[in-house]
Amino acid sequence: MSEKVCVGLVGFGVVGTGMVSCLLRNTEQINARSGLPVSLKTIADLDITTPRGVDTQGVRLTNQIDDILNDPEIDVVVELVGGTDFAHTLIVKALESGKDVVTANKALLAYRGPELFELAEKKGRLLLFEAAVGGGIPIIQVLRNGICSTEIISIHGILNGTANYILTRMEESGLDFQTALIEAQARGYAEADPTFDIEGHDTAHKIVLLSEIAFGTKVSFDDVYREGITRLTSFDLNMAQELGYRIKLLAVAKRHDTGLEVRVHPALVPLSSQIAAVSGVFNAIFVEGNPLGPAMFYGQGAGGDATGAAVVADIMEAARQKACGSHRQNYYNFDHQNLTVRPMGESICSYYLKLMLQDEPGVLAQVAAALGDQGVSIASFIQQDPHAEHQAIPVVMTTHCASESAVLAALKVVHQLDGVVEEPFLLRIEELEG
Amino acid sequence: MSEKVCVGLVGFGVVGTGMVSCLLRNTEQINARSGLPVSLKTIADLDITTPRGVDTQGVRLTNQIDDILNDPEIDVVVELVGGTDFAHTLIVKALESGKDVVTANKALLAYRGPELFELAEKKGRLLLFEAAVGGGIPIIQVLRNGICSTEIISIHGILNGTANYILTRMEESGLDFQTALIEAQARGYAEADPTFDIEGHDTAHKIVLLSEIAFGTKVSFDDVYREGITRLTSFDLNMAQELGYRIKLLAVAKRHDTGLEVRVHPALVPLSSQIAAVSGVFNAIFVEGNPLGPAMFYGQGAGGDATGAAVVADIMEAARQKACGSHRQNYYNFDHQNLTVRPMGESICSYYLKLMLQDEPGVLAQVAAALGDQGVSIASFIQQDPHAEHQAIPVVMTTHCASESAVLAALKVVHQLDGVVEEPFLLRIEELEG
Repeated sequence: MSEKVCVGLVGFGVVGTGMVSCLLRNTEQINARSGLPVSLKTIADLDITTPRGVDTQGVRLTNQIDDILNDPEIDVVVELVGGTDFAHTLIVKALESGKDVVTANKALLAYRGPELFELAEKKGRLLLFEAAVGGGIPIIQVLRNGICSTEIISIHGILNGTANYILTRMEESGLDFQTALIEAQARGYAEADPTFDIEGHDTAHKIVLLSEIAFGTKVSFDDVYREGITRLTSFDLNMAQELGYRIKLLAVAKRHDTGLEVRVHPALVPLSSQIAAVSGVFNAIFVEGNPLGPAMFYGQGAGGDATGAAVVADIMEAARQKACGSHRQNYYNFDHQNLTVRPMGESICSYYLKLMLQDEPGVLAQVAAALGDQGVSIASFIQQDPHAEHQAIPVVMTTHCASESAVLAALKVVHQLDGVVEEPFLLRIEELEG
Repeated sequence: MSEKVCVGLVGFGVVGTGMVSCLLRNTEQINARSGLPVSLKTIADLDITTPRGVDTQGVRLTNQIDDILNDPEIDVVVELVGGTDFAHTLIVKALESGKDVVTANKALLAYRGPELFELAEKKGRLLLFEAAVGGGIPIIQVLRNGICSTEIISIHGILNGTANYILTRMEESGLDFQTALIEAQARGYAEADPTFDIEGHDTAHKIVLLSEIAFGTKVSFDDVYREGITRLTSFDLNMAQELGYRIKLLAVAKRHDTGLEVRVHPALVPLSSQIAAVSGVFNAIFVEGNPLGPAMFYGQGAGGDATGAAVVADIMEAARQKACGSHRQNYYNFDHQNLTVRPMGESICSYYLKLMLQDEPGVLAQVAAALGDQGVSIASFIQQDPHAEHQAIPVVMTTHCASESAVLAALKVVHQLDGVVEEPFLLRIEELEG
């Protein structure tokens, strides 16, 4: 073995460029803190001609990944191609060739993480993925090492910068969803096809990974409830504020004796909570554990620079392990029996309900009765002045804690009532302390 | 070597009890994630009879530390006695006996850390200290591993829960300093002799440690500027709020090409900043780096439970290293040339100035001229209505950025002016973005 750690990068996009840039910028520090110097030997990409604005002198550029996989000198393969098929094959081949793997691929790990972790363990190699969740926030390290003695009870995360940017702009400037989305796209914060970000897929991938690490169990992505932010209006954001809350696209994971709650949806969080203060493209992960108490980790959620730095931190971990001549276990922490994800109907929280009512006497009493029949009680209530007679007006109410199934059953009845002119709209409230 | 990690605890106080409680509570998870089972074999303390409310069945209680130091089966010595003399001897002896050491002793490490780290490195043993700074916040792990590829530019920390609790109560309820301190003592948040907390010694110990790890250099504790919170009044907290700030006891560390700034003092931070939202006994560390950008880590700063959990996390690290049969380097990261701490006079920031002025025409013009002579310009200005004629009234102003030495020179002149009836009072403003 040569006295350095040799890296092969597959995928020279935004994060790959950030990684190369970090290696070049902080070389001295990175080498001093790695145990062995980090040497980027080869970059593989379909496009190796477009300039990326970083110096690749001395690095071999190729469009053959076998130039990396079959190079015995390469210790660490960095997978930054994304997607699930090719990336899967690549990671499997790299691990089977006896190489450590660093990846930022949350989608792949959300679907097939445990299988790949098992392979890494079997091969005695590392499979590191700090860059997969919360770019600039070292949350994987924190969960796996920093607070590993604590039993995690719950995680609340703002894990998608695009969605958080849109919500921040809607709230700050009263923009409607579409306008805020277009602005985010113009600023490069949202992709041309923003579906993954605004419909919560990306957030769901990330909370699956965090839940697996935090709770020590496998989580099936398909069991995760997922709802995006496209139906939110400025009206909802204003009403939330009036009620003392702010609306965030939240990933929630909670451990119960009977299973896990893992869900992604817009939620009202108290204005006084730490997580309510997370604005723009930033991410944050709020964790409660025993005996940790509450803790929060905040930083840039995406971007080539912060995410590239996380990739480099993982490479440094691989370097340190090579330097001490021994690989430790990966400690993926699947130490608990498989806790299954409970059906969404079993979730219990308080709710924000928006109804469009014809201003007819008695409608409200019927709504209250329908909720009461399911054991759902009203906590607060805001009715707008009607602008014109006989016009439908929005009525917003919050409930005390109730199960999702009870609330949905009640709303089904409410929807059928005369005088209720639209499908009732529901948001969940997370009463975070801290 | 037996197939477990054997621990000897010296010092069975609040944190020691929290550590034992964590080991008992989360045994299954701790063992599963440690590589080897963690076994607490011996506890040494002068008092081994007072019940601590935790089960010590099967643990040897002794008041002879040699029962730990001379026990070849013990792998890890946990030092929780505090103080600098006995603890120093203990750690040296433990390392020299070939044992790993876990400590929460920030005072000792602030004075003699590098010497002890060097000894650990020489002996090939670990010296871990996650519990020394920000109990429930794994900031040492974060700096040493999580964000190790990033060049840290600055750190702003709320590192003392007692001081932060007092400031929160003064602001929330308009209490004066003494009343808030007495309340903190009654609640167990402040010690009978609160000097170390309220005068900033404890915060200074912690920022020395964080600076050393983050900047890769040794920092002399005696070079750190330190100022406590005892001179603050509700008036200052109110004025700060009116100006858009909140006052926090802040630890600040910044790296410049010419050296380090390391200082501890009350400071105004923007109300919109993440760190302004940190209230009560909580701690937070706000870090800016390249390419990381801004990031913040928030959690419980003290308390036996959170700090005990941090001790256990360090024990688990020692266990993992034993499990893989190899000790890696400690990576204390003293990779940079010794950056010395710059004199406080060279610090540059904007300032909050409070003057007591006789309401005489012309005084204010003289004050402005004295500041102007030193190149200090006034940014904003609040003058209270005088309650009675000829009574001295407080005038608060903020300045644009200036060096500390220029401001102090100007205030010396101001103090001599007719109509300035008290020594001018100065606070620093930290314009955090994020």
